[in-house]
Amino acid sequence: MAAKGIVLFGHGARDPEWAGPMKRVAARIAARSPDTPVGVAFMEFLTPTLNEAVDALAAAGVEHITVVPVFLAQGGHLKRDVPLLVAEAAARHPALTVTQVLAAGESDGVVEALADYALGVA
Amino acid sequence: MAAKGIVLFGHGARDPEWAGPMKRVAARIAARSPDTPVGVAFMEFLTPTLNEAVDALAAAGVEHITVVPVFLAQGGHLKRDVPLLVAEAAARHPALTVTQVLAAGESDGVVEALADYALGVA
Repeated sequence: MAAKGIVLFGHGARDPEWAGPMKRVAARIAARSPDTPVGVAFMEFLTPTLNEAVDALAAAGVEHITVVPVFLAQGGHLKRDVPLLVAEAAARHPALTVTQVLAAGESDGVVEALADYALGVA
Repeated sequence: MAAKGIVLFGHGARDPEWAGPMKRVAARIAARSPDTPVGVAFMEFLTPTLNEAVDALAAAGVEHITVVPVFLAQGGHLKRDVPLLVAEAAARHPALTVTQVLAAGESDGVVEALADYALGVA
């Protein structure tokens, strides 16, 4: 059984092209870990919402969801707004646990990849 | 001579902690390529501005600056607003070339690092 699932959660933007890299990240996760259901969700402008993404994973039988903020850093959204959205989404599914982790950009691997990119294009 | 320099350009946020990962990226670039002057700049909320960062690299003798958007994706800011800021900063230094590249999040390496992070925390 696929007990664990991932929601990649992004800020969102008016330009639908903005979602492209997040969709590519989801595709890489699906390719590398086919047994881990993965979805994307957005805080504003784009859909699905976090509620919609969590509902979909719950319907797929997931028991624990990790909400991975695809944000460059911790800031007001992740400290104040997103925990409320996560709590709201979790409240719709009492049997589910939903955990928000640190912004992806805070990780050493992403920091190094950003440095790689900058050195490669300069 | 250090002819090339890098400005890591981010959106900015009200929370000063938000700048932490960008400063870590700059430190990694400085460690890996000590001859490449590197600065950070922000579109809003945080300083320095792009003008200030470009002025500083120009004063350090840099002749070509690559503005690396530390954004997750291409969107309205990078398509419309930032090119104007880059042109404005460049116009202050006629001897300098200033080039804006694609959002870092569009690169394969950053996409893979984001997938690594998500799989590692799920």
